[in-house]
Amino acid sequence: MKHLLGLNPLSAADITALLDRAETYVGVGVGDVPKRDDLKGKLIVTLFFEPSTRTKISFQLAARRLGGDVQDFSPGGSSTSKGETFIDTVRNIEAMGIDAVIVRHTSSGAPEMLTRHLQKHVSVINAGDGSHEHPTQGLLDILTIRQRKGTIAGLTVALVGDILHSRVARSNIHGLTKLGAKVIVCGPPTLVPPEVRQFGVEVADDLDDILPRCDVVNLLRVQFERQRSAFFPSVGEYAHLFGMNGGRMKRAKSDVLILAPGPINRGVEITPDVADGPNSAILAQVENGLAVRMAVLATTAGGGRG
Amino acid sequence: MKHLLGLNPLSAADITALLDRAETYVGVGVGDVPKRDDLKGKLIVTLFFEPSTRTKISFQLAARRLGGDVQDFSPGGSSTSKGETFIDTVRNIEAMGIDAVIVRHTSSGAPEMLTRHLQKHVSVINAGDGSHEHPTQGLLDILTIRQRKGTIAGLTVALVGDILHSRVARSNIHGLTKLGAKVIVCGPPTLVPPEVRQFGVEVADDLDDILPRCDVVNLLRVQFERQRSAFFPSVGEYAHLFGMNGGRMKRAKSDVLILAPGPINRGVEITPDVADGPNSAILAQVENGLAVRMAVLATTAGGGRG
Amino acid sequence: MKHLLGLNPLSAADITALLDRAETYVGVGVGDVPKRDDLKGKLIVTLFFEPSTRTKISFQLAARRLGGDVQDFSPGGSSTSKGETFIDTVRNIEAMGIDAVIVRHTSSGAPEMLTRHLQKHVSVINAGDGSHEHPTQGLLDILTIRQRKGTIAGLTVALVGDILHSRVARSNIHGLTKLGAKVIVCGPPTLVPPEVRQFGVEVADDLDDILPRCDVVNLLRVQFERQRSAFFPSVGEYAHLFGMNGGRMKRAKSDVLILAPGPINRGVEITPDVADGPNSAILAQVENGLAVRMAVLATTAGGGRG
Repeated sequence: MKHLLGLNPLSAADITALLDRAETYVGVGVGDVPKRDDLKGKLIVTLFFEPSTRTKISFQLAARRLGGDVQDFSPGGSSTSKGETFIDTVRNIEAMGIDAVIVRHTSSGAPEMLTRHLQKHVSVINAGDGSHEHPTQGLLDILTIRQRKGTIAGLTVALVGDILHSRVARSNIHGLTKLGAKVIVCGPPTLVPPEVRQFGVEVADDLDDILPRCDVVNLLRVQFERQRSAFFPSVGEYAHLFGMNGGRMKRAKSDVLILAPGPINRGVEITPDVADGPNSAILAQVENGLAVRMAVLATTAGGGRG
Repeated sequence: MKHLLGLNPLSAADITALLDRAETYVGVGVGDVPKRDDLKGKLIVTLFFEPSTRTKISFQLAARRLGGDVQDFSPGGSSTSKGETFIDTVRNIEAMGIDAVIVRHTSSGAPEMLTRHLQKHVSVINAGDGSHEHPTQGLLDILTIRQRKGTIAGLTVALVGDILHSRVARSNIHGLTKLGAKVIVCGPPTLVPPEVRQFGVEVADDLDDILPRCDVVNLLRVQFERQRSAFFPSVGEYAHLFGMNGGRMKRAKSDVLILAPGPINRGVEITPDVADGPNSAILAQVENGLAVRMAVLATTAGGGRG
Repeated sequence: MKHLLGLNPLSAADITALLDRAETYVGVGVGDVPKRDDLKGKLIVTLFFEPSTRTKISFQLAARRLGGDVQDFSPGGSSTSKGETFIDTVRNIEAMGIDAVIVRHTSSGAPEMLTRHLQKHVSVINAGDGSHEHPTQGLLDILTIRQRKGTIAGLTVALVGDILHSRVARSNIHGLTKLGAKVIVCGPPTLVPPEVRQFGVEVADDLDDILPRCDVVNLLRVQFERQRSAFFPSVGEYAHLFGMNGGRMKRAKSDVLILAPGPINRGVEITPDVADGPNSAILAQVENGLAVRMAVLATTAGGGRG
């Protein structure tokens, strides 16, 4: 695997191989577990055109725990404000001698475009492009589910919230259905695009209706900072209809697994008692994020097995 | 010692142990003196909610000179602007596998609150919280005094300026009085809270009156960027009443030691001839800052002797 | 060589030595070519008072590929906004124990001023000061020319565009004329200062007139972000008169070498077909930038041969 642009282009075997490899990286470089050298001598570049400290640092730590060298090129009012094109920026970075570029961009397809303009040996890893895909988030969600439930095939997984704008939802849908899960997308009708049915998912607009059937509920973040028009009447109504809270937990399966890609809005998509309760795997997701990103970097830029 | 939240909770023996350890780190990693490995394999995180390039870098260099890995998580319009709580932010950082977090926050008590929410193995180091404490600044001031004067006990030390808002003043007061110095706080009455007398310090509002008795004068920075209301009539009047200048140096002891935590406002709390003169230890403070922070990191996160 | 302040103070032998050393560093630390340890144990500081992600990172990668430790101190609304002077800032950085400072500043002469205020062992490297010099850009342009043309002496090199504000032009003029090239500066009369003739260059205002004689054309970037007053009527007219395009390429020598210091404005100083064509060495310039900066750092801060 040279690049990771999304989970849609991958086979079930590809995804399983990445998950298996990620399992071997859990905890590497933490506490007394030494780092590895899968990326020794490699220069890994982060290039984030949208702000996201957390995902960027997760990738950077992952690369360093595999012995890689990391350089951030994310623009902060620099060359991009000097009128240079996206491709020129990346070609210039490439000319400094890099092995992989981890890119986040507001435009869907930007990482794929890069693969057509860079030299053959440079790996491109999608860290989120527009509303297209966010494959490492999908992988870490799926890894967390697999750890807690033992398998993916046969599970019923609800994705709740803003499906329309969510690249996290898309990567989850592709990865989970390929591995044999039943996926239900559930949200306000304005935020659930009808086309999503083509991917073989069930569409619902009443969380209470589907909740008793779910093995996993993944609560997408309400992206207040992106919401330009009013897709739902109020935060209070959203929380009432689609937020996970103590009352809903009683109507769910007792071992329902609660995921949330964070940063969470407490009291909106999830109440504190649920976020901090025994069914929540929110912090395990963060830890798995590192393992998944190590697996992706080792597989693409490390010349690895995957 | 697991955490460093302030100098007030420490005993004189604790403080002396930190100072003694710091002495052994002066110059480590500089020039031909090799780095050490007290923090080998440890991930140290800086999390500054107030801007301070200099203190942050001092901590980062200190950690790296002890062989530690450093990652900055200071927000720059990222997740915190996405509505996440302080505790969620830190728990997420913790889930990436860290050994210590160095935190600066506008709220007094924020570091202490962290110790109650993080896992047991994570050390919390206060890099300045509200107007509460800035313990490493206190330690580096005291180390500089001890180097120049041989001891702390019996010295008369004036803290001059804005005592009310100054966490540097508080940490100096606690550390110096515990080690047996006499502390005089001196500033405009609006900027010297009467409660400060409870810590056993003398309160003055006329610098010229107390100056002849002082062995050390520590000139707190006028924090123009924090001054919301008019606590003193004008910069000129402040400099006239509380600024250290050549005239005042003549009325002070010939070996008076001049400290200033910087960045200094030349011509306000200190004139250039004094700042650059033989009694000034301003640059020694910076150098000692590294040694003190190495001692604190090694003692808390290094599983060290302290 | 202790400092690098510009190419004007250097002899032809100095420049040639730097270029020769740079040749040995091309590709070091890239792919399977291991890093070196010329800067092992050295702390190299970047201090950019003007934003320039690319040049800063080029220097940082260069230092790290020679085994140096790198710390960025570039202000981002920190201490400099707290009222501290430039010299105090640098003295404070110096007190943390550094070996070299790479400085970019809006004021011409700022790096030279630093050499008079820092301790003897600290090297100062000019990364661009006002409209004075940008010596490593000059060196990388010259290295690229030498690689492609075999020599500098006897070549005719045109510098096209805004000569008045360009430190890149000045460093090119000094370096190229010292090595025996004939330099023609060509631009709108408002942007070509008459004093430039003192350096032995030819002044032209008609690109088409001089183009057939040129072995190299170096297209200075139109700095839209600096242009405060209207030095030329419109972008369209500038491109028409001074932009390199396919039509002009036909009237140039068939092996004319096209350089541009970037980030380029496609369609202004250069059209895409020329920028991406066989005569362009734009990406080679970026790669050579790393090699040149390694040579400069090793020669100044590495105690090296240069």
